[in-house]
Amino acid sequence: MTGPPEIPPLPGHDVRLRNPAPLPNPADADTVVIANLSPLVDDGAYPIKRLAGDDLRVQADLFRDGHDILTARLKWRLRDADTWQETAMDPLGNDRWSAACTFPEPGYYEYTIQAWSEPFLSWRHDFSRKVEAGQVDLETEILEAAILVESAASRALEAGQKDHGEALQAHARLLRDTASAAKAAELVAAADLNALMQFWSDRSLSTSLDPPLTVLVERERAGFSAWYEFFPRSAAGSSDTHSTFRDCLPRIDDARAMGFDVIYFPPIHPIGLTNRKGKNNSLTCLPGEPGSPWAIGSHQGGHKAIAPALGNLEDFRWLVAQTRARGMEIALDFAINCSPDHPYVQEHPEWFFHRPDGTIKYAENPPKKYQDIYPLNFHCEDWRNLWREMVEVVLFWVDQGVRIFRVDNPHTKPVAFWKYLIEEVRREAFDTIFLAEAFTRPRMMETLGKIGFSQSYTYFTWRHSKQDFTEYLTELTRGEMADYFRANFWPNTPDILSHPLRHGGHAAFKMRAVLAATLCPNWGIYSGYEFCENTPMSDENEEYFESEKYQLVDRDWNNPDNIKEFIGRLNAIRRGNPALQRATNIEFCHTGNDQVLAWVKTTPDRSNCILVTVNLDPGHRQESNLHIPLETFGLHEDAAYQVHDLLAGESFLWQGRFNFVALDPSEKVAHVFRLEK
Amino acid sequence: MTGPPEIPPLPGHDVRLRNPAPLPNPADADTVVIANLSPLVDDGAYPIKRLAGDDLRVQADLFRDGHDILTARLKWRLRDADTWQETAMDPLGNDRWSAACTFPEPGYYEYTIQAWSEPFLSWRHDFSRKVEAGQVDLETEILEAAILVESAASRALEAGQKDHGEALQAHARLLRDTASAAKAAELVAAADLNALMQFWSDRSLSTSLDPPLTVLVERERAGFSAWYEFFPRSAAGSSDTHSTFRDCLPRIDDARAMGFDVIYFPPIHPIGLTNRKGKNNSLTCLPGEPGSPWAIGSHQGGHKAIAPALGNLEDFRWLVAQTRARGMEIALDFAINCSPDHPYVQEHPEWFFHRPDGTIKYAENPPKKYQDIYPLNFHCEDWRNLWREMVEVVLFWVDQGVRIFRVDNPHTKPVAFWKYLIEEVRREAFDTIFLAEAFTRPRMMETLGKIGFSQSYTYFTWRHSKQDFTEYLTELTRGEMADYFRANFWPNTPDILSHPLRHGGHAAFKMRAVLAATLCPNWGIYSGYEFCENTPMSDENEEYFESEKYQLVDRDWNNPDNIKEFIGRLNAIRRGNPALQRATNIEFCHTGNDQVLAWVKTTPDRSNCILVTVNLDPGHRQESNLHIPLETFGLHEDAAYQVHDLLAGESFLWQGRFNFVALDPSEKVAHVFRLEK
Repeated sequence: MTGPPEIPPLPGHDVRLRNPAPLPNPADADTVVIANLSPLVDDGAYPIKRLAGDDLRVQADLFRDGHDILTARLKWRLRDADTWQETAMDPLGNDRWSAACTFPEPGYYEYTIQAWSEPFLSWRHDFSRKVEAGQVDLETEILEAAILVESAASRALEAGQKDHGEALQAHARLLRDTASAAKAAELVAAADLNALMQFWSDRSLSTSLDPPLTVLVERERAGFSAWYEFFPRSAAGSSDTHSTFRDCLPRIDDARAMGFDVIYFPPIHPIGLTNRKGKNNSLTCLPGEPGSPWAIGSHQGGHKAIAPALGNLEDFRWLVAQTRARGMEIALDFAINCSPDHPYVQEHPEWFFHRPDGTIKYAENPPKKYQDIYPLNFHCEDWRNLWREMVEVVLFWVDQGVRIFRVDNPHTKPVAFWKYLIEEVRREAFDTIFLAEAFTRPRMMETLGKIGFSQSYTYFTWRHSKQDFTEYLTELTRGEMADYFRANFWPNTPDILSHPLRHGGHAAFKMRAVLAATLCPNWGIYSGYEFCENTPMSDENEEYFESEKYQLVDRDWNNPDNIKEFIGRLNAIRRGNPALQRATNIEFCHTGNDQVLAWVKTTPDRSNCILVTVNLDPGHRQESNLHIPLETFGLHEDAAYQVHDLLAGESFLWQGRFNFVALDPSEKVAHVFRLEK
Repeated sequence: MTGPPEIPPLPGHDVRLRNPAPLPNPADADTVVIANLSPLVDDGAYPIKRLAGDDLRVQADLFRDGHDILTARLKWRLRDADTWQETAMDPLGNDRWSAACTFPEPGYYEYTIQAWSEPFLSWRHDFSRKVEAGQVDLETEILEAAILVESAASRALEAGQKDHGEALQAHARLLRDTASAAKAAELVAAADLNALMQFWSDRSLSTSLDPPLTVLVERERAGFSAWYEFFPRSAAGSSDTHSTFRDCLPRIDDARAMGFDVIYFPPIHPIGLTNRKGKNNSLTCLPGEPGSPWAIGSHQGGHKAIAPALGNLEDFRWLVAQTRARGMEIALDFAINCSPDHPYVQEHPEWFFHRPDGTIKYAENPPKKYQDIYPLNFHCEDWRNLWREMVEVVLFWVDQGVRIFRVDNPHTKPVAFWKYLIEEVRREAFDTIFLAEAFTRPRMMETLGKIGFSQSYTYFTWRHSKQDFTEYLTELTRGEMADYFRANFWPNTPDILSHPLRHGGHAAFKMRAVLAATLCPNWGIYSGYEFCENTPMSDENEEYFESEKYQLVDRDWNNPDNIKEFIGRLNAIRRGNPALQRATNIEFCHTGNDQVLAWVKTTPDRSNCILVTVNLDPGHRQESNLHIPLETFGLHEDAAYQVHDLLAGESFLWQGRFNFVALDPSEKVAHVFRLEK
């Protein structure tokens, strides 16, 4: 590990000849150290995310050599705007400073910190110490103050602020006419002088954070949304007849009645014929079977075409307009899968992977084979045109009025590609929202959030226990992820009929809906959920039996055995309670029973305080004391307070920190209490 | 907080005319994500610090889209070297990878990570899955392998590695001649083929961390050193006679006998006459009083001159050479203070602060005044020449053979200035060591370490309790500071006679010496410590009474009432035990008594295991059970083992996890046990 330390050789007696040291670079003369910013995503490599109207609270270490008094501003603006807005930063102690700004509308914002020694504040500090110590011979000091004020006056006059400049000049004259320390102390205490001196402070030796940091501010729906997924081809609920876009409007009205605001369609493009999959993912496709909509492309067109059985572009635009008229939006699936019949295969064979014999490779995850899909080679020789074409596909649908895309399996395409695509689409249509369907390893899921996806599917579908939820929600809302990763909780998808839904009956569907809708500001269901459809492929395979992915399905959309009204109430509660519209305000409550999960969510001003408690066991009555975090609600220790269950419409008068709940799943699976004030 | 989400307006029916999306930038086509590196100092803004011979273990998240098998290398080189060294990184799970490298000699090193999908490994993985699944029709796959091997052969041949190329070609021919999956599986298992394929792996689609990160590798003494400070002018120990450099050699020999290897001198330059301070910091200086050596500069010269009473440059160089001949070094004080008589005042009045009447300002910290010191204005108009002149001052002493500088109050000069100065000095003389004397706020102390100081004074002097030490050492050695901040522990300085030393007698001096010397690889004492000198200025003022800073002192350097032998034994123990020569290997042990502190330090290979236990109460016997961390020592639960007290020369046979110690300060204040193997 160590030998004797080597001492450098002694130089010769004659001082070495050398060139003088180079002069320092003027750019390297920072006066103030600005460090340890928070929040930061990968040290500023990626933007912080916010929704329009949200705050950003910035903290940083600011300090410099010596004893001068520092002052600092947080500055922000829309990227490429000419002027900055700014606010003073407050010292928190131990060289930590803080300030907050608000972003009123969507856009890329940038922010920076400017900090400097404030000469007038430093002078006042030193002067008052001298006065306190009884020093009286302070004429020189008073003269220094006059000169500082005159210098501020010059800056005001140069900036054309004549009234400010003249007011400052008047203050300076008073100081110049004074030899008395007591009188000078009185003069420099004047409120208007201090306001003017702060406004016209000398920033010539300030240091700014450079380059500025970026905030991606998206519209509300990027962070508060309720999704309903259905297959347009089954909109009319008949396995005999392929439905059309015109058949979809009743479904959209049903979804609206349930309170959803995003309608998500699986791919609507022509489906390949070669190796088309049959019912239940069979390799054999019978005549007339429609195939999987994710096997995109046929002689009828590719990613910019519509499957003729659904209608034409006119029909689609009609449906988009009808949906918008209802305050809702259609989200399209962006699935970069090509069937062997996709036009790209003929037009751009160089974009695919090839076997030694020159044929194109189908997708594999050995030993599984996906012969109906040809993957694209994102690092092929012609990758730049391939990447651009993918942008053009998205922009084509943007031009049809679509502003939300659910992206299929983004983790199987390069991260760098998504960064490029999302930035290019946002450049044309900033209000576009991207949901990442990446059910994969944590680092990849996080990174897709960092590089620009607005929302992400999560592990919620496989989280069931109290410990699961507390750990997972803490990870999502308390660490760095809170600033860049927006979760979207789905109790089911066409691929996932998760375990508790299979055996828990209606109670399980209600319980999972409450969890998704109130733990997370973004949630969604795949149609059939409202009818508690629950036949899995097998005990081991969490896919649906006779999945809609491979066939048209019969479904009685008016089946009275449904939980539509319950779901509708949940979405209405979400809309009516701002505390449920943000993610990071969650705080779990201690309960004495592992089957009873409870948490509170409040708005920053406490005008809306929600307490949710859920029975995680759909089979049995569970009861528990809840430990209510009175501090969070702004209540004192022995307070009596009323809580109103928004689900059941009942009110309770509670007192103090511990209160009892009992939830029998045959009657109710959860309380969603609002604190009444 | 939220209004109704705004839906973007529906575009007109005609698709908007737009330019095609811009092609992606070729530089933005990373294939692998490289993120979350550790260690990092401020996300790579400042270098990691190491000593020559030390390891650097690097971890990072590495992942990419899809299922390809990744491979990665850690690469490093001396900055500006032509070629990289590299080592394979190992996956730790959850996309985390790790590798270590070693830096054999001092210098600025850079390191990076290169990662890519390894086509042959990916092929092998897929192929073996297909074989396991019983697939037999794999001729195309085997051909793909042959092509991969041929491609590697081409790379080898192009690089002039004919033997490698031909060996690979032979393997490829065997594969091309095979249609049998079983036979091919056997062929591709060949060890030499796999080694060659790894060596000639196709890196054309690799991603590298860019720019590389930097490591500052310093010589051993930058991180393992024992300092002895004395005033050359009092070297002969007489208040009547100003000593000279020639008088210093006996002191250096004494320090050598005590095992010190760095001799630190307060400033040796001419001392100002104007407002010179008298005895005990008096504003009145009597004729003949020598003044404070920190009030630098007179008509006899400034920072490049030697106070004539000490000798001349010849004498100084003689002393430097004598010290080096003893395996030791002289450290000079770099104190940027100018007396009113400093030549700069005449030559560069523009470098100072001015009053309105044009006179130069003395230093103040209101209401205190320091009339014997003129501070320099590091942001004056001519700052660039001032900064450069400071570099020239340091290089002047570098030219005299000095390679260690103790920098006085660096926190009162700009951080940016120190970064420039240290980098410029290292450019000329890389082996220069800088110790920051910044007793100031945490963020400033940390930052001075980040921007290049080799070592730093610390809060050790004011840390006394068990909780103090465990918290402070954990902060210094377990967090980010471990990679850039090297502590130097001083029980006393000319400014600080710390509290426990005033009343604890010899036991307190021994106890504080053990703590400093064995908690920290760098420690130092100010002369007089070995004689347990302990008269403070007052109960409230921790400075020494009749401080050497302001006068020549009488001191009998051969006073038999001393702890020289004890200090010598401590330094010998440090030299003989590598575990005590590094900082971050410390692990505190549980003890049952708050007055008994215990910790272990071990080398990575456990060849040297040290257990130190100290009685923190110099007034009373203290005893305790120690909880020995057997795992750290590599011992099993019921092991019997021998520990040898290197201070007392006694051995003990211990067993198991709990062992008893008793320390009576009248006999011994500490054990420094070495585990005997």
